[in-house]
Amino acid sequence: MKSPQALAFDVFGTVVDWRESLIRELQAFGQKNKLDRDWAAFADSWRAGYLPAMDRVRRGELPWTKIDALHRMILDDLFAQARIDSLRDDDVDHLNRAWHRLDPWPDSVAGLSRLKRRFIVTTLSNGNLSLLTNMAKRAGLPWDCVISAELFHHYKPDPEAYLGCAELLDIAPEQLMLVAAHPGDLRSARKSGLMTAYVARPLEHGPARPMPPYEDDEFDVTAKDFLDLAEQLEA
Amino acid sequence: MKSPQALAFDVFGTVVDWRESLIRELQAFGQKNKLDRDWAAFADSWRAGYLPAMDRVRRGELPWTKIDALHRMILDDLFAQARIDSLRDDDVDHLNRAWHRLDPWPDSVAGLSRLKRRFIVTTLSNGNLSLLTNMAKRAGLPWDCVISAELFHHYKPDPEAYLGCAELLDIAPEQLMLVAAHPGDLRSARKSGLMTAYVARPLEHGPARPMPPYEDDEFDVTAKDFLDLAEQLEA
Repeated sequence: MKSPQALAFDVFGTVVDWRESLIRELQAFGQKNKLDRDWAAFADSWRAGYLPAMDRVRRGELPWTKIDALHRMILDDLFAQARIDSLRDDDVDHLNRAWHRLDPWPDSVAGLSRLKRRFIVTTLSNGNLSLLTNMAKRAGLPWDCVISAELFHHYKPDPEAYLGCAELLDIAPEQLMLVAAHPGDLRSARKSGLMTAYVARPLEHGPARPMPPYEDDEFDVTAKDFLDLAEQLEA
Repeated sequence: MKSPQALAFDVFGTVVDWRESLIRELQAFGQKNKLDRDWAAFADSWRAGYLPAMDRVRRGELPWTKIDALHRMILDDLFAQARIDSLRDDDVDHLNRAWHRLDPWPDSVAGLSRLKRRFIVTTLSNGNLSLLTNMAKRAGLPWDCVISAELFHHYKPDPEAYLGCAELLDIAPEQLMLVAAHPGDLRSARKSGLMTAYVARPLEHGPARPMPPYEDDEFDVTAKDFLDLAEQLEA
């Protein structure tokens, strides 16, 4: 295997544990607003609205819309469905920005710090740039730069996102490795000529939930976590 | 004065000492290629070609072109004028990337590290994203994110660059402060509604060269260096 020049990381689920972080934020929101709900299920529904919302942008049904705004649309729908109303707008806005405050997996900061010694490490996320920047600042994620689908007005898995990332880094697609916990993201990156590293995040969707299937030799690297990835990439 | 949310830094001359760095690189290039020239004057000519080249892009005479490519066009012209030929392309390419290897001013890393504790700190440079990313990695510049005119296909002082930076950070223009050693850049930023901080870099163009004039109260902050800026902004 040739060595990549740069590693581009999917973020939600790959670098940060969106589910536990959202549950924590939703519980705090519930306490403050005296609401008792199944916040784990609510978090899962919030996340489940994400792909369909991005697909509306990708199909052109919506103009370019940042993830912050998509998250807010989904959240408002969920509150309406749950007949939760009379909320203060700034409370809802603070809750919506929970996505800026997601906690990293335990190995993320240490693994990235090690990988950064040898490679350029960047995000390549559908999260908007301010979300990714605020998240990195709070969590101590040591990115060399912050690249978002927002810069291309194309959400992954559109090829413009993968190719645009390589173009901004001024390297060929085959010198860029996407790191993700999602086989579908990696397959789309590979179609654009990128190298691929799968990192297992078995708890992304909560305990005892199956992980998406993939073939043994499907990706250039298959790693248990970011420290294992650093080991395998000799960083 | 209201406090800004984020600080956007001009880079060439404000954060890094392009002149001494280029002279060092040109001297090494000269030694390797057995060329004896006035490399300080050569560095000044290289830099002097930068504004006219960007203006060709801004006027639409050239399509969008990264600074790396503009630097290379200027460099090739300077070699032709100096009747220097028979150079190896990879030597010239390495020299052209001297702009990725510029050294920070002595206070830059310490000042940015301090400012980063209180503010989001980003680049807002005409340098392309890969240049800024490589520079930061080598020099240890602790940016929260890397924002370049390349992302907007508009070079400063076009308003799209200043407004685009605020938009990506998801803040109002008046919550963003441009930090620069160049009054012209700051004046253009102010026209777009940004706050402004002037930092004096008396050696940017070499010893005993006058600094561009400005009025005493022209900018929101006037600082001696980044540590003084941090002090004045209570970071």
